[in-house]
Amino acid sequence: MLNPADDAFLARLAGRLPPGSLTAPEPRHLTEPRGRRQGQAGALALPRDTAEVAAIVAACAAARVGIVPLGGGTGLVGGQVMETGPLPLLLSLERMNRVRGIFPEENVILVEAGAILAEVQAAAEAAGRMFPLWLASEGSCRIGGNLASNAGGTAVLRYGNARDLCLGLEAVLPDGSVFHGLKRLRKDNTGYDLRNLLIGAEGTLGIITAASLKLVRPPAAEGAALLAVRDPAAALELLGRAQRRLGPLVTGFELMHRQGFAFLAETMPERRLPFADLPDWTVLVDLGLTEGMDPAAELEALFAEAAEAGLVSDGALAQSLAQRADFWALRESIPEANRRIGAIASHDISLPLSEIARFVTEAGAAIGRLGDLRVNCFGHLGDGNLHYNVFPAAGRRREAYDDLRGEITRTVHDLVAAAGGSISAEHGIGRLKVEDLERYGDPAKLRAMRALKAALDPFGIMNPGAVLRAE
Amino acid sequence: MLNPADDAFLARLAGRLPPGSLTAPEPRHLTEPRGRRQGQAGALALPRDTAEVAAIVAACAAARVGIVPLGGGTGLVGGQVMETGPLPLLLSLERMNRVRGIFPEENVILVEAGAILAEVQAAAEAAGRMFPLWLASEGSCRIGGNLASNAGGTAVLRYGNARDLCLGLEAVLPDGSVFHGLKRLRKDNTGYDLRNLLIGAEGTLGIITAASLKLVRPPAAEGAALLAVRDPAAALELLGRAQRRLGPLVTGFELMHRQGFAFLAETMPERRLPFADLPDWTVLVDLGLTEGMDPAAELEALFAEAAEAGLVSDGALAQSLAQRADFWALRESIPEANRRIGAIASHDISLPLSEIARFVTEAGAAIGRLGDLRVNCFGHLGDGNLHYNVFPAAGRRREAYDDLRGEITRTVHDLVAAAGGSISAEHGIGRLKVEDLERYGDPAKLRAMRALKAALDPFGIMNPGAVLRAE
Repeated sequence: MLNPADDAFLARLAGRLPPGSLTAPEPRHLTEPRGRRQGQAGALALPRDTAEVAAIVAACAAARVGIVPLGGGTGLVGGQVMETGPLPLLLSLERMNRVRGIFPEENVILVEAGAILAEVQAAAEAAGRMFPLWLASEGSCRIGGNLASNAGGTAVLRYGNARDLCLGLEAVLPDGSVFHGLKRLRKDNTGYDLRNLLIGAEGTLGIITAASLKLVRPPAAEGAALLAVRDPAAALELLGRAQRRLGPLVTGFELMHRQGFAFLAETMPERRLPFADLPDWTVLVDLGLTEGMDPAAELEALFAEAAEAGLVSDGALAQSLAQRADFWALRESIPEANRRIGAIASHDISLPLSEIARFVTEAGAAIGRLGDLRVNCFGHLGDGNLHYNVFPAAGRRREAYDDLRGEITRTVHDLVAAAGGSISAEHGIGRLKVEDLERYGDPAKLRAMRALKAALDPFGIMNPGAVLRAE
Repeated sequence: MLNPADDAFLARLAGRLPPGSLTAPEPRHLTEPRGRRQGQAGALALPRDTAEVAAIVAACAAARVGIVPLGGGTGLVGGQVMETGPLPLLLSLERMNRVRGIFPEENVILVEAGAILAEVQAAAEAAGRMFPLWLASEGSCRIGGNLASNAGGTAVLRYGNARDLCLGLEAVLPDGSVFHGLKRLRKDNTGYDLRNLLIGAEGTLGIITAASLKLVRPPAAEGAALLAVRDPAAALELLGRAQRRLGPLVTGFELMHRQGFAFLAETMPERRLPFADLPDWTVLVDLGLTEGMDPAAELEALFAEAAEAGLVSDGALAQSLAQRADFWALRESIPEANRRIGAIASHDISLPLSEIARFVTEAGAAIGRLGDLRVNCFGHLGDGNLHYNVFPAAGRRREAYDDLRGEITRTVHDLVAAAGGSISAEHGIGRLKVEDLERYGDPAKLRAMRALKAALDPFGIMNPGAVLRAE
């Protein structure tokens, strides 16, 4: 059982740290983007370096005090907000935001965990490189949180998720020891993969303090198109044709349902799809080409082939990088439109690619049977990752559906599980999905997870109650 | 302490398995490719399905009997050969070699762990896809071993290593339970990354029984060139230029020292470099292009640019796919030539790319100070992975250097560690490098590894003495 971060503990801890290291949390440290959870804490620790993180963790381990690590606070599953239990210590990495080194000739950057994603991207760009983790929250999320939650985003199809972009980690383990694994190596088979165990563990097995990240050379030319397709099956066939033509040069392939554009028209009328008629489904395809290739020509050829095959009925090719940015802004505005409309239930799911079309049909029918609801389904089709969000009928309030929320989520997740999918594709488990994980997770994996947690964090101090139920 | 797989235990185990499941091991089950280690075993188990593997593991756990899992037996660090300790049970996956399913439209294949790598490649090819793990041993290694050791090879630069090509696993954990994680998903953030923990654990945390693997579409056109370069620094600059021109379409980038070609001339005179004068260093660059691109034109343009910049002094462009295969055969023959010459010590190392040139110079000087020795340095330069092998002077036998072997390896590994490199880039730890890992590994990581091992395999039955010293 944990002890609270009470005044006596905080006074002892303060004595071991430089002045100003412990403070009262601000409201931003105690909530999450959708405003649905309110955290609690004894204090906020703001370490300046890895040694201070280690000292804090060691003190918490000795006193059996829980720690909630904080990145940018943009997570959508409550991993950063502890609402109940003995008062924890919040530990924000925000002061540890330096770029420790950049090695353009190696395509590597070393950054501290508190660096904001957009700053990592900017540092890479200044060195003629690109850090290809693209998230809507990149202006405020921090790289430590991106790694702890194995963030995904819109370029996973080409570059992989946060896990795939990480070469090495420095982390403070739950006993206060420091794992010095900040390697700049592409290959390193020296023992168990502690790096990947910490990535995606959402701060429950240790605190990531710095990372060695992969950079890439920016493509020589980029382009994008919006293409109107009949249905998800046609979108998938289009993806196959794009990859047959262009292989790894297809950077993004996003699917959007007309409901999303209807929400945009209602909440942000300045954001408009460049089609005369709103299609049922729209795809945003993004290319990053090599020297001498012409994005417009490649996109036109793809459009012609797909139109000939009856896959696309309309299309708009970006005529400039500015227009490409507009296309992406359209896509990136959909989550904000969703927030303004107010979802009853949101689902971050993934499916085997060949199960998607059937899932969309079956889930639509099942949701229809539950009541008068609207569905906005969009996402990273190339990765099989859909955001399947359910909304009130027009003119009704989400509160009117409070009784239905559990059944909606259960309906969606049951269909996902039956199709061999995942109930959390990129957002993680946090505290929101602990019960879902218990219900849908593989029993042997869950037992192994509990054993791993007990082995590395025997007192359960690291982000208590996230991912796994607190003992 | 473990018990031996004695007659009483084997009789009990046989009673729970179909006839023919337990047999005496053949010589191939008790040795390794270099013939330097001789294993021992109570018996060989040949399970036909996952349930039988689970029954065997549960019986061993109950009786505290060690298990050595076997794939194709091609590992180079003794992970498959237990020379001492209580007689273990060998468990070969060779009867579990089915393709369970192939999903070309998803770019996924499901295979059992005993499938030979070349058979996985052939199954992918028959479906119009490619499984891009390319190893010299692909005709005999098995995919379970490839994953257990996180195999690398010659296409890691583009496609990643075995870890990066695996979407999901089925595995029997040390308590005999089955982890059903055979997902066909690109994104799945539901809890700790058990998949990556098992990959690279060399059979010490469980037995991989099946895998869900990524496939890719084969490139529309392929080509290769051999280019003579001054030194590793020039080779790296050439790589940077190739990637600036072609981004992810550079599939392989191999570096070879003239010593390797001298060994070829001595042992396989039919394999000849197509240059009039033997250069100090040669690069094999391999491209996989998209539709409409011409390999010869791209390679010529790269050669012209590199020659203009003074990076390459000679070159041969493959004029056909057959000639490309010849170039690769040249590269792939070097390990066999090395075996025929007989290395005193082999090192599978990786370095940060920008440390390679200095390492090669310093290591060459340090080895020169140790005695009259020859060095053959070659490898996957794009990944920073060198095979740095040390040989007797011409006319001398390797046995004459037995007293020097430890010092040679210590010298090489000390330089690698000082440069932030790895003492095992792609071969793993096995039993050969357990002491090296203890010497060079991060102490916090080693403690965490021991805790993870104890948590998942409390009796230490899984591949005892591999990766971590047996208790």
